[in-house]
Amino acid sequence: MTNNPTAQSGNYVGVDLSTQALRVALVANDGEVVERRETVLERDDVARQAASMIQELRDRAPSIKAIGVGIPGLVNPQTHEVVISSGMPSAAQGNLQAELSNLTGLPVALENDANAAAYGEYVTGAGRGSRNMFYVTLGQGIGGAIILGGKLWLGASGFAGEFGHITIDPDGAECACGNTGCLETVASAPNIVRRTHERLFRDGTSSLSKLSMNRDFTAADIAREARNGDDFALLMIERTGRYIGTAVASVINLLNIERIVLGGGVMEAGALILDAIIREAGRRSFQPCFEATQIVAAQLGTDAVAIGAAMLARDAAIVTG
Amino acid sequence: MTNNPTAQSGNYVGVDLSTQALRVALVANDGEVVERRETVLERDDVARQAASMIQELRDRAPSIKAIGVGIPGLVNPQTHEVVISSGMPSAAQGNLQAELSNLTGLPVALENDANAAAYGEYVTGAGRGSRNMFYVTLGQGIGGAIILGGKLWLGASGFAGEFGHITIDPDGAECACGNTGCLETVASAPNIVRRTHERLFRDGTSSLSKLSMNRDFTAADIAREARNGDDFALLMIERTGRYIGTAVASVINLLNIERIVLGGGVMEAGALILDAIIREAGRRSFQPCFEATQIVAAQLGTDAVAIGAAMLARDAAIVTG
Repeated sequence: MTNNPTAQSGNYVGVDLSTQALRVALVANDGEVVERRETVLERDDVARQAASMIQELRDRAPSIKAIGVGIPGLVNPQTHEVVISSGMPSAAQGNLQAELSNLTGLPVALENDANAAAYGEYVTGAGRGSRNMFYVTLGQGIGGAIILGGKLWLGASGFAGEFGHITIDPDGAECACGNTGCLETVASAPNIVRRTHERLFRDGTSSLSKLSMNRDFTAADIAREARNGDDFALLMIERTGRYIGTAVASVINLLNIERIVLGGGVMEAGALILDAIIREAGRRSFQPCFEATQIVAAQLGTDAVAIGAAMLARDAAIVTG
Repeated sequence: MTNNPTAQSGNYVGVDLSTQALRVALVANDGEVVERRETVLERDDVARQAASMIQELRDRAPSIKAIGVGIPGLVNPQTHEVVISSGMPSAAQGNLQAELSNLTGLPVALENDANAAAYGEYVTGAGRGSRNMFYVTLGQGIGGAIILGGKLWLGASGFAGEFGHITIDPDGAECACGNTGCLETVASAPNIVRRTHERLFRDGTSSLSKLSMNRDFTAADIAREARNGDDFALLMIERTGRYIGTAVASVINLLNIERIVLGGGVMEAGALILDAIIREAGRRSFQPCFEATQIVAAQLGTDAVAIGAAMLARDAAIVTG
């Protein structure tokens, strides 16, 4: 017997490769983070860097059963190889799964970062208690994932949940994907900054004007100034919420889904943006669908990808088709 | 032994209450229509009228196992009672399922007409060979339904697939649902006629102008004139296809679904509208999702609801949540 309750059922390791950082978490069988490590990601040898961090955790918790890795790319659910990864090209060239498994002697499951975060929120975050959930992450880009009957629904080629490329304005701005008026052209963090710059340049009086004399401001700055009562920043946050709410309404109408969980850096604006999203989604969705949906903020913050990746290594919870 | 191959595995009856007509079909175990009857729907006593038509079929094919009924409304999947039916209020007041079952002595399954049509196309029409399919019906109204893993996915309150109320233009026309710019405000049959009237009135020269002197034209007239080479009618059909394609792109992006089947009277414009839909969906959806999707016309025509209702009486193929 042991005093560590997690040792009885084993631990998992979740690895988050979704940003510039390499995050590794020791995750108990119930999804609780026992310990976390973070360092700057060295893109040349991701597998070796992750393996060495995992070894440190292992010295403290020997009973690790498997490793889950969330990456900014698409993973082939049959072969577990990285198919497309705009954020992390070196991983797509090698076979990250095989390398990491060889280095650690443990089973390794790779998954798209948005899918992993969705599953993390589902198991132990804002999705708890639901069986069917749509997850949105709003940050440098916009991603989404669908959980149906407790499992990730990946679709025919693994891309289900492409929330960022929903058209919200047919005559809107050009998107890198080739469409015009995708949600991502207005509501990703860089595009919130772009819109704010454009409007400030034209007719803005805002605390952001002063800030922009010293350095480029970020979406986090806009959110903070909005919370501090700056009318201009508040307008930008509310309008962003309206754009997101328009796309959320399409999800509600199509899926009549029990819960929608919104995460990512853009949601750090808190109730200011969440309320605007809910208001617009309510205006734009079919009422019986809207009334059946809870729209809530994510709860796991920067732990979501690592926790979800670890729990995906625990569960066979992926459906394609 | 018998010469009738269907008698060995039993027959089903499908009832279609989705329009002004009452359609009843004897459907073999494999989805083939053995015989069909059609009459004007008497709204006062739907159950008795249907029961008497079913009795005629029964005299010819005694081995009927169950009855499926497709209705223009929402059916509670637990109680099988009609919850909302804008098209058929009398059915919503009584308990159609119990009445028809009492009158015939057979098990009766009620289902929403779009869901039934979707399942019909899935079993024996344009959905054959797929496991995951989105169905759209474009007629007096616009409906949709989702089939995942061979079963209807109804969502949290039975409304999944509300395709007609997807916002395709945030500043578009007012919709009865309370939103602005729903697909239905421009692409249902009555709204295709309205848009055509408006434009003809302003600046039209078309074979439709002559037609409209004698009587109001219909969406079917517009489709026919387009096929006959009338430029104006063709423009209206192509533009309608673009609107529909914008909403189809949202389905493709969100569900990464294997097949999309488009049915209903509006699709009688054939390749003229289907090609426009596919073109716009291709422009507006994420390419890896688009490439994994087949977008096709429905094949069962006015049999779809009755066949699907009969097959839903055969199968337990409904999932809610």
